[in-house]
Amino acid sequence: MKKISLMGATGSIGTQTLDVIREHPEEFRLTAMSVGKNIEEARKMITEFNPRLVSVQRKEDAETLSREFPSSVKVLHGDEGLVEVACHQDADILVNAVLGSVGLYPTLQAIEAGKTIAIANKETLVTAGHLVMEAARAKGTSLLPVDSEHSAIFQALQGEREKNIEKLIITASGGSFRDRTREELVGVTVHEALNHPNWSMGAKITIDSASMMNKGLEVIEAHWLFDIPYDRIDVVQHRESIIHSMIQFHDSSVMAQLGTPDMRVPIQYALTYPDRLQRPGKRLDLVEIGKLHFEKMDLDRFRCLAFAYEAGRIGGSMTTVLNAANEASVALFLDNKISFLDIETYIEKAMNAHQVIHRPDLETIHEIDLETRRLVSGWV
Amino acid sequence: MKKISLMGATGSIGTQTLDVIREHPEEFRLTAMSVGKNIEEARKMITEFNPRLVSVQRKEDAETLSREFPSSVKVLHGDEGLVEVACHQDADILVNAVLGSVGLYPTLQAIEAGKTIAIANKETLVTAGHLVMEAARAKGTSLLPVDSEHSAIFQALQGEREKNIEKLIITASGGSFRDRTREELVGVTVHEALNHPNWSMGAKITIDSASMMNKGLEVIEAHWLFDIPYDRIDVVQHRESIIHSMIQFHDSSVMAQLGTPDMRVPIQYALTYPDRLQRPGKRLDLVEIGKLHFEKMDLDRFRCLAFAYEAGRIGGSMTTVLNAANEASVALFLDNKISFLDIETYIEKAMNAHQVIHRPDLETIHEIDLETRRLVSGWV
Repeated sequence: MKKISLMGATGSIGTQTLDVIREHPEEFRLTAMSVGKNIEEARKMITEFNPRLVSVQRKEDAETLSREFPSSVKVLHGDEGLVEVACHQDADILVNAVLGSVGLYPTLQAIEAGKTIAIANKETLVTAGHLVMEAARAKGTSLLPVDSEHSAIFQALQGEREKNIEKLIITASGGSFRDRTREELVGVTVHEALNHPNWSMGAKITIDSASMMNKGLEVIEAHWLFDIPYDRIDVVQHRESIIHSMIQFHDSSVMAQLGTPDMRVPIQYALTYPDRLQRPGKRLDLVEIGKLHFEKMDLDRFRCLAFAYEAGRIGGSMTTVLNAANEASVALFLDNKISFLDIETYIEKAMNAHQVIHRPDLETIHEIDLETRRLVSGWV
Repeated sequence: MKKISLMGATGSIGTQTLDVIREHPEEFRLTAMSVGKNIEEARKMITEFNPRLVSVQRKEDAETLSREFPSSVKVLHGDEGLVEVACHQDADILVNAVLGSVGLYPTLQAIEAGKTIAIANKETLVTAGHLVMEAARAKGTSLLPVDSEHSAIFQALQGEREKNIEKLIITASGGSFRDRTREELVGVTVHEALNHPNWSMGAKITIDSASMMNKGLEVIEAHWLFDIPYDRIDVVQHRESIIHSMIQFHDSSVMAQLGTPDMRVPIQYALTYPDRLQRPGKRLDLVEIGKLHFEKMDLDRFRCLAFAYEAGRIGGSMTTVLNAANEASVALFLDNKISFLDIETYIEKAMNAHQVIHRPDLETIHEIDLETRRLVSGWV
């Protein structure tokens, strides 16, 4: 029986993590969870999974839930509550499924507490990969990827030696706008951007997929997780999202992980690693699919991906700026305050305005993150 | 420095094994080799690689070579010479690249001598899989697959647990006649059959690819190598031969090995396993390839594959009959004595005429093998 602490329970990865726990009651138990403001959902989850610790964003929500549930369910709130969930003493593994760089501090605390971490929160690695990986190495902590692409690479790496890696090949569906020219991206609506062809995901990551920033964040995440330089990480457009990513080894052999697009598969793999567990559901049927397509990724059309490579190569605080500018711009776009193409314009402006700091510490990263968000908001 | 003994040096796998040795003089040394009647080639190989032991098929050829080379090169001949090569005391690994069931006895002797065996000789496993695998288990010998399909499965299995395998998915290019109807197979010539679309291989295996018997032999080989029942081994037509085969695990995840069609990659993997070694040459470029196709394998058009499944499921001596009838018929076809479609007719007739013997011993297998060849030859 593996005890699981889950940060971000009501998000897309969060609810799918709960699906996996529900499917395997003999194997997994939810021991702690955090939610944001969705108290209605939290209530149902507490009733169903009976965790020992719950943290919510706001104090008043914590007080409400405390009154409703027996004292066996401890309810906390805010940043401190989130850290308590991240480091919960009962948990064998932390699933970090929060959105954005808010996940950074609790992740570092969980590493300090010696937790194995299943990480779906890519912004944490993008904004402060060097701090997270250094801490993980120092503590001997395992960071298990949950993103389908990184899980694919991680699975392909099993039984292999890292020294033999020649190249990582990350696949990209192309997102909602893969068949549009740049001209056709002018004036696209939030509704159109949210219509992802293959994956059912949260709003922010779906917009990131449409702008190709999601792939950019993944490239930076892969750089940190697998310790591979940027010139040995390729992105290939693969519209079916069947091959989830690949490793090319230096004997020219390529190992790949494939499957139907279902995030519960990589979530479950992180929870059962290095073993696997039976899963219900549809199997990959390549004959039914018939064809898999591969196309060159167009870095002129998808400028966000080019910015991500650039920020990654510059390093230091530049990836913090990339991520914060993106989070702020996507929020503005979802709020109908700016256009879709403004997202990349704002990121470019923020990066141009930034004087890079090498090896920033946690406080500096936090300041730069806030400063960048303020800067971007000021442009509207 | 790994010392290699090579059975079948002048064949397609043999010469490509020598390519790999030539490319890595620091890593590999040829210590023993066997050839058939191609003495001209053998001479060049002895000069280049300077093995300590050589075995040829005929006594007179052994005498000729003995006179030509210094006494540091020991030259033997016949079945006994082949066994000496298989069991050469200096060798760290035996590459069994002979063709046909002639490889069986030396393989069993090499297992007995405790050799690690890189096995390209699929007929050995088809004709007597139970004897080979029993002996290997008893001796704790590693059998490392060289066939690209089995190497792909073996690579996909690294870091995994066999209990988690749900299904093996073997890919098939479809061979020279994949785009012909059964009617269009009437009267095809040897020349047409030898024109394989993707792989450069020996004559026998190219004909087996055209008749789909090669895939049938591979299904049986996979059954023995990976201990998977026949109803969990699928064959999918994949005309580009880029995905070399796959394992579907019971969490629905599929692991695959990909690459350009080059037999030196799986040969080298068997020699370096569990490590990998740099290889020169072309890398897989999925963007250049553009599309990968997958089609249902038609067991009515490719009756040999259906016979192989049937023989495998019946088990016992039936796979010996399948293999011997195929070897004999293919030889007759290559000799222009019978038509292409006669190959499957003869195999079917031989299987129908056979009373299956369960758990046949080596002598029984040998007798049934000879008897089947005699039977088939008598039909011409």
